[in-house]
Amino acid sequence: MLKFHVLTLFPELFTPFFETSIIKRAQDSGATQLQCINFRDYATDRHRTVDDYPFGGGAGMLLKPEPIFRALEALQERETPDAILLMTPQGKPYRQSMAQEFSQKKSLVILCGHYEGMDDRVRQTWVTDEISLGDFVMTGGEIAAMAVIDSVVRLLPSVLGNQESLAEESHSHGLLEYPQYTRPAVFRGISVPPVLLSGHHGKIAEWRRMQSLYRTWKRRPDMLLHANLSEADRVVIQRFEKGDWSGLDG
Amino acid sequence: MLKFHVLTLFPELFTPFFETSIIKRAQDSGATQLQCINFRDYATDRHRTVDDYPFGGGAGMLLKPEPIFRALEALQERETPDAILLMTPQGKPYRQSMAQEFSQKKSLVILCGHYEGMDDRVRQTWVTDEISLGDFVMTGGEIAAMAVIDSVVRLLPSVLGNQESLAEESHSHGLLEYPQYTRPAVFRGISVPPVLLSGHHGKIAEWRRMQSLYRTWKRRPDMLLHANLSEADRVVIQRFEKGDWSGLDG
Repeated sequence: MLKFHVLTLFPELFTPFFETSIIKRAQDSGATQLQCINFRDYATDRHRTVDDYPFGGGAGMLLKPEPIFRALEALQERETPDAILLMTPQGKPYRQSMAQEFSQKKSLVILCGHYEGMDDRVRQTWVTDEISLGDFVMTGGEIAAMAVIDSVVRLLPSVLGNQESLAEESHSHGLLEYPQYTRPAVFRGISVPPVLLSGHHGKIAEWRRMQSLYRTWKRRPDMLLHANLSEADRVVIQRFEKGDWSGLDG
Repeated sequence: MLKFHVLTLFPELFTPFFETSIIKRAQDSGATQLQCINFRDYATDRHRTVDDYPFGGGAGMLLKPEPIFRALEALQERETPDAILLMTPQGKPYRQSMAQEFSQKKSLVILCGHYEGMDDRVRQTWVTDEISLGDFVMTGGEIAAMAVIDSVVRLLPSVLGNQESLAEESHSHGLLEYPQYTRPAVFRGISVPPVLLSGHHGKIAEWRRMQSLYRTWKRRPDMLLHANLSEADRVVIQRFEKGDWSGLDG
């Protein structure tokens, strides 16, 4: 079982997230356990102050070190976390391989910053992994923490009913996913590609692979450098490079 | 004022997010207006079915086109959205420049997929921007939608009290942010870098710039290619490349 301990000033943001869809099912089945710790509870003054002005001047407020240190020390008395993650735009860009790695752990702590960030001594003393959701800035680390939890929990054994759906999806094979269609076969005048209605599994698989290759080649050529490509895949991509799209419309 | 219309099967996930911190303040001040539309309300059958099996086989369920089409058609009768965003791992990686661009708009629709995704005809017919939060997979588009809303709303005029804090932060200048410290000056035996206590604004600014350059050079050299660097910045980076860290410890 994988336990998450989220240190945040806004535990209420996580309430419906913990109670919805697969995150709820994963807890009910014992695959994961999720807990928020409001480090404001570890502030020592009467006003439970968690922020203060930055040394050296500048806009905004910083999270003070004491409440976070004390919250982590209290947690350490009952738990030995495998990793302590800090969600920050200064971190390593999050990717599926990191979700896979975290899904092998037993206990993870996620620190959510807020305001202008936190006193750097928290990072120096505690943090094992600094993680960025991407090259953009949010108000706090809470949404990023949810993204990590969601992407990790769905990889835990038996959480998604169908392991096949993990294997086929985007970023698992290093390619973008092919387009999908459901009923009706014609909707608002737009038809489903005929091959998908053919019942010919070999042709369907081939068409889907070609669509994945095309989308990746067109939208994210950077991903092709690291994808697992067969000889047949390379032939298809060479055709795209020559402007030959035959077979793409199914 | 910027209006967001979020199409989702899980509007309850957004409730505390809409009611917390700057997102709440931004609505109270009239800078933004946030609305969830549950497209299950637009399903036409008695069971309000929103998903169906994919044509051509495969694991999992797809979102049917009808309820989403009908929800968007109903919205279009009272609103002309500037853009319709689909949150999907097949999309363009989200970045701060996109947040800036969206913050100039008046009306944005965000479509949140779930399960294995949605019938591709929704994308073909409606979507103006496909956006990916990064190269990882989540259960649905809801958390990604929150990330977009949060990153955009905080850029709206007068939402953050202090415009200075927008200008100084990570990814605004194409560099990672420098470390920050607050009181106490010595905590658990770790001192704040002396320069920050010096009161010498020029030296503090110089130290901070050097820290930003160092972090970016060490962690995200890819960002240096697009950063706005002065001649002095380039000299500092050349020193790092020679292994000279003088001045870094403040």
